[in-house]
Amino acid sequence: MIPLYQDAAEIERMIQVSDDDSLASDDRALSRAAVEARVLGILQEVQSQGDAALGKIITRLSDPVLPESKRDKTCPWRLSKEALQEAAQNIEPETRDILEYAAANIRQFAEAAMASVQPVHLSHEGFEVGLNWTAIERVACYVPAGRFPLPSTALMTAMTAKVAGVCDICIVSPKLTDEVVAAGVIAGASSFYQLGGAHAVATMAYGTESIRPVSMVVGPGNAYVTEAKRQLQGVIGIDMLAGPSEVVIIADKDANPEWVAWDLLAQAEHSPDACAYLLSDSLPLAESVRLELAKALSQEALPEYLRASDSWGKIFVLQNLQQCVAICNQLAPEHVELLVATPEALKDHMKDYGALFMGYHTPVPFGDYAAGPNHTLPTNRSARFSGTLTPLTFLRPQSWIHATSAAQKLVRASEAFALTEGLIAHARSSALRLK
Amino acid sequence: MIPLYQDAAEIERMIQVSDDDSLASDDRALSRAAVEARVLGILQEVQSQGDAALGKIITRLSDPVLPESKRDKTCPWRLSKEALQEAAQNIEPETRDILEYAAANIRQFAEAAMASVQPVHLSHEGFEVGLNWTAIERVACYVPAGRFPLPSTALMTAMTAKVAGVCDICIVSPKLTDEVVAAGVIAGASSFYQLGGAHAVATMAYGTESIRPVSMVVGPGNAYVTEAKRQLQGVIGIDMLAGPSEVVIIADKDANPEWVAWDLLAQAEHSPDACAYLLSDSLPLAESVRLELAKALSQEALPEYLRASDSWGKIFVLQNLQQCVAICNQLAPEHVELLVATPEALKDHMKDYGALFMGYHTPVPFGDYAAGPNHTLPTNRSARFSGTLTPLTFLRPQSWIHATSAAQKLVRASEAFALTEGLIAHARSSALRLK
Repeated sequence: MIPLYQDAAEIERMIQVSDDDSLASDDRALSRAAVEARVLGILQEVQSQGDAALGKIITRLSDPVLPESKRDKTCPWRLSKEALQEAAQNIEPETRDILEYAAANIRQFAEAAMASVQPVHLSHEGFEVGLNWTAIERVACYVPAGRFPLPSTALMTAMTAKVAGVCDICIVSPKLTDEVVAAGVIAGASSFYQLGGAHAVATMAYGTESIRPVSMVVGPGNAYVTEAKRQLQGVIGIDMLAGPSEVVIIADKDANPEWVAWDLLAQAEHSPDACAYLLSDSLPLAESVRLELAKALSQEALPEYLRASDSWGKIFVLQNLQQCVAICNQLAPEHVELLVATPEALKDHMKDYGALFMGYHTPVPFGDYAAGPNHTLPTNRSARFSGTLTPLTFLRPQSWIHATSAAQKLVRASEAFALTEGLIAHARSSALRLK
Repeated sequence: MIPLYQDAAEIERMIQVSDDDSLASDDRALSRAAVEARVLGILQEVQSQGDAALGKIITRLSDPVLPESKRDKTCPWRLSKEALQEAAQNIEPETRDILEYAAANIRQFAEAAMASVQPVHLSHEGFEVGLNWTAIERVACYVPAGRFPLPSTALMTAMTAKVAGVCDICIVSPKLTDEVVAAGVIAGASSFYQLGGAHAVATMAYGTESIRPVSMVVGPGNAYVTEAKRQLQGVIGIDMLAGPSEVVIIADKDANPEWVAWDLLAQAEHSPDACAYLLSDSLPLAESVRLELAKALSQEALPEYLRASDSWGKIFVLQNLQQCVAICNQLAPEHVELLVATPEALKDHMKDYGALFMGYHTPVPFGDYAAGPNHTLPTNRSARFSGTLTPLTFLRPQSWIHATSAAQKLVRASEAFALTEGLIAHARSSALRLK
């Protein structure tokens, strides 16, 4: 049963301990070194041997490959134009409707974020300066397919890149289901590769004889994919290093305990290392949620790992909602639900989080799929310094300066500043522009 | 003498070769593994032993320490409030004027970039969604002081963080000169640490008994600082991994060869591994620049490493300016100077670069110091996927959703989408909100 904590000092101690490695369990740290070494080997193999390495690795790991009939002529891992169109048409009309409803909301939200960013242009005496936001040219969106194939991830990442103005968007996934392909086509992706794991990321970063490299890889993945992104960061850009999914639910006495229980389970079902915490000012609510969880777990066909509810869940009962907010800020979780009567009153006190779900009627799955905001969010306490995927993830701020011979004050200031720093050639390069 | 290449095939080959490891020489790769291992050791030492480790490392490396009279009572590496004010007042009035002129332009540019970003708020049937840009709470700006102490870097990084709304800004530098402290004070930094190298970055990331950790470290540094930032990325946010500085100058026949020569030298004087390339459509201009370089190097008191001009420089003479632009795009350099009659005509064809300097009268040092745009820029071909430091570097996009019981279409879409992905608890969490 999900454990319940009421003692303030004990709760504080638990938060401090978890401060080191976030909400996540420490078990993963043990195998990290092994993953690092294995991924490094795969990256080197792909970089040095290209397509040949990729073929060997895929055979070695028994990765599912595209049937011959679906392959592009020039690259066995790329879906042919015909297979692509067929897959996109294969899906049920109802599924298409849902994908298109979600796509419309995601597009509208991304477009609003995009429109909210404008270029800069300032005039000074004798010179002008500016800043433009320029889209990255070619991007790969990784769509995981381990436990669940996630067409929603194809929509969220590729659509956002498209709105940013990325010309060339690839979908890369260990399993190109019809739904994933359809979502990618709706989002505006132009090529699809059935490739998964660290070798997929390496291929997109370095390129091979048959695959052109990209400048950025985005999207979540398993530990190997994430480690490959970590090691290749700098060679390519990445969105973030996605860890296990997390939610903190802050619920008051009037929250519906059944709803709270299922919101916790929705988070926990992502993977065995997902985390779902409940913070409440109400012991009766907390107790009711525990009963609802027990009921749900005894009846429903949920993944077996959910039954170990003390590994993914904790309940903290605190004095008041302000305390709940304070603890939540320390945890800096990916998702926060405010299942309280007046969520607006808490919102301004929330500091570090990825996405906020306000009010009894707003569960996290609304954000996972169709409301519009992105489900690609910072985990593992990185919400302290990073945020959700937006079109800006795919834009580079580039600055420019255009001076004329009238910029004499700037010339003199640059010369003098350079001399302060002891940079002789900088001073001379400036001074030569003196009239 | 700086080598000159005219054969198109040879140039193409050179660019391809350098594609792997940017403009930079391969020598650095050899020592990379040693740096990695050494930095890892330092990070572990600081994380596990805090202040004690820091003291030991500083003694071991003979780092310059603050005189006792300047130390804060609670932390020997922090400048006391009194010493801070004294340092800021010690500088020459002329130096203060220059710092404040530069600060005003940097602030105005950062404010314009900040104002160009707006929150998002959209209303749908039964639900609202939005996006806010929230400043990171506590940031450290690393100011290098190896070859040259750089007050300009203190201004560029700390002022930009301040404009973004960061409350708590630390300046961290191996040598807190009066100029660096004055620049930090003008920019709005609140605490100053005389700490350098990988242990400085580790201290800011993990915190110690006497120093509170930050959420982000920005600013350039030597190979150890950069490697520490690389390894700590994820524990903290970072701006970018700064490599050696680079410029590509595109100059036409009417460019002043003396100006071109000194602009190249200004880039090359940063460090022995800096790079400065000239691309021109004019052989006479290229030849004149070589003569000017020889003249400058024989007369001036420039760093000795500049005399090895074939290590930092190359001149490519091409058919026309379009070819120059194409080569420049492949190099994706940090700085580009367009020393041509009509720089506007080339601007739209420029793709991958950090900052652009347009026209004969705009040398890079204008951007290094006082024009307003930031001098913290992507190196090592990372301009393909990242850009200059702006206030947005210090902001996190945080999304929110607020649904009411009227959001029935969203409920049904989320439920159906979840079932498509096989996520039972997601579907149930959504469906519970059905009326």
